[in-house]
Amino acid sequence: MSRFSFNQITAKPWTLPEMVAGCVAAGVDQVALWREPVAEYGLDRAAALVRDAGLRVTTLCRSGFFQLPGWFDDNRRAIDEAAALRAPVLVLVSGGLPEGSRDLAGAREHVADAIGRLVPDAAAAGVTLAVEPLHPMYAADRCVISTWDQALAIAERHPAEHVGVTVDTYHLWWDDTVLEKIARAGDRIAIYQLADWITPLPAGVLTGRGLPGDGCIDMRAFHDAVDKAGYRGPIEVEVMNADLWERPGRDVLAATMTSFERSFRGR
Amino acid sequence: MSRFSFNQITAKPWTLPEMVAGCVAAGVDQVALWREPVAEYGLDRAAALVRDAGLRVTTLCRSGFFQLPGWFDDNRRAIDEAAALRAPVLVLVSGGLPEGSRDLAGAREHVADAIGRLVPDAAAAGVTLAVEPLHPMYAADRCVISTWDQALAIAERHPAEHVGVTVDTYHLWWDDTVLEKIARAGDRIAIYQLADWITPLPAGVLTGRGLPGDGCIDMRAFHDAVDKAGYRGPIEVEVMNADLWERPGRDVLAATMTSFERSFRGR
Repeated sequence: MSRFSFNQITAKPWTLPEMVAGCVAAGVDQVALWREPVAEYGLDRAAALVRDAGLRVTTLCRSGFFQLPGWFDDNRRAIDEAAALRAPVLVLVSGGLPEGSRDLAGAREHVADAIGRLVPDAAAAGVTLAVEPLHPMYAADRCVISTWDQALAIAERHPAEHVGVTVDTYHLWWDDTVLEKIARAGDRIAIYQLADWITPLPAGVLTGRGLPGDGCIDMRAFHDAVDKAGYRGPIEVEVMNADLWERPGRDVLAATMTSFERSFRGR
Repeated sequence: MSRFSFNQITAKPWTLPEMVAGCVAAGVDQVALWREPVAEYGLDRAAALVRDAGLRVTTLCRSGFFQLPGWFDDNRRAIDEAAALRAPVLVLVSGGLPEGSRDLAGAREHVADAIGRLVPDAAAAGVTLAVEPLHPMYAADRCVISTWDQALAIAERHPAEHVGVTVDTYHLWWDDTVLEKIARAGDRIAIYQLADWITPLPAGVLTGRGLPGDGCIDMRAFHDAVDKAGYRGPIEVEVMNADLWERPGRDVLAATMTSFERSFRGR
């Protein structure tokens, strides 16, 4: 459990102070924060709250969305926020196609260029940008970076301490080549996130993810690949699930911790 | 329009005789049939109906589903049905994970083996098996063959006249490597199908596809790649869309033909 980090979105209705208190009570000392609830609570207050509670922030989720006009300034703000929260990693969801566009290759090249433009700021702030390949079902509207190969190719244009890749089981599990590639990824893994695949998918395909073990992903195979790569950092459980969000945050955290432990059994 | 083939599922509520009459009235001489409506009407009657109407059957959709206990006999029946309909191609949707399984690699190997076992029957019947890679969002519950590479690797174990690949824009468009691979596919393209990607996806992610041009897929890039491969066969429009299914079949066919023509403009 020492590597467990509770990703705030998993208990979305929980307020930030409730989540912090709940994690402290449960003996959890690592959390991943999301920009919106942090902004709502106030960045400086949030930073003080987690610091005073003895929590480490493993990632700030998320910026990116490079198809939007204000992407540069917004991403620079996100880097500053990550630094203020002492989050070593900022997760990047690269955004979908621009409105009305069919130029997927062009959108992908723009993402690579945009990340390149952010590297100086990230380096200065001591924040690693974690390019996240999202499942191909999000390629049109949320993230044109759909595969491990694409994310790695973008990261490899830069030093690993500045740009890495997010390994999220939910987004990558279908790829028959991904485990061996992850195992060879060395220090390019910036963060490791767990969520399971359950069907049927809900409308909008955002809020139907499962806790590890509730779906059909072989979590242990992912654990092994990430291990082989030499990654020894935090492991977040990040699950967006409409049913989970109906439950009290404390129950969700407990279920999340149980599912996390379970996912390592039998190794 | 000489290469246009109307895939029956696009006007799902249309009965088989209605569809045949509608196609004849619209000057369409190629159709793709689905097993369920054919069985409902009767195989021999259906074969006579389309033959007497002067229609060519471009594909029979679909068998596969190799995770089910009766897959061998069912697929042999499907081969016989294709032959009876004089359909040169049988589309294979390979099925999802067996109930409760997390062994995706094992399921994929089983599919390859299963198709190998069907080749003698397909060859004897003069039917080409068209392995269809389905979008990765179906990997768990509908088709463990998720990429062009996987489908091609299975096909290449056999002569191209016995096992080919289905190129369906909807399932492949997100893949940044697929167009160049299709362009090199030579005679492995067994059938070419069009549907467009529209968001948001509906619950179950089956019935939210768009007519060519209604979504974000660059159809002309696909046309070019398929052309480069030397494919000169029929082009089906196969769109599962709940809104289309509310409309009269005749309107759906007209809209489909318009969208098909439109997708070639400006080449």
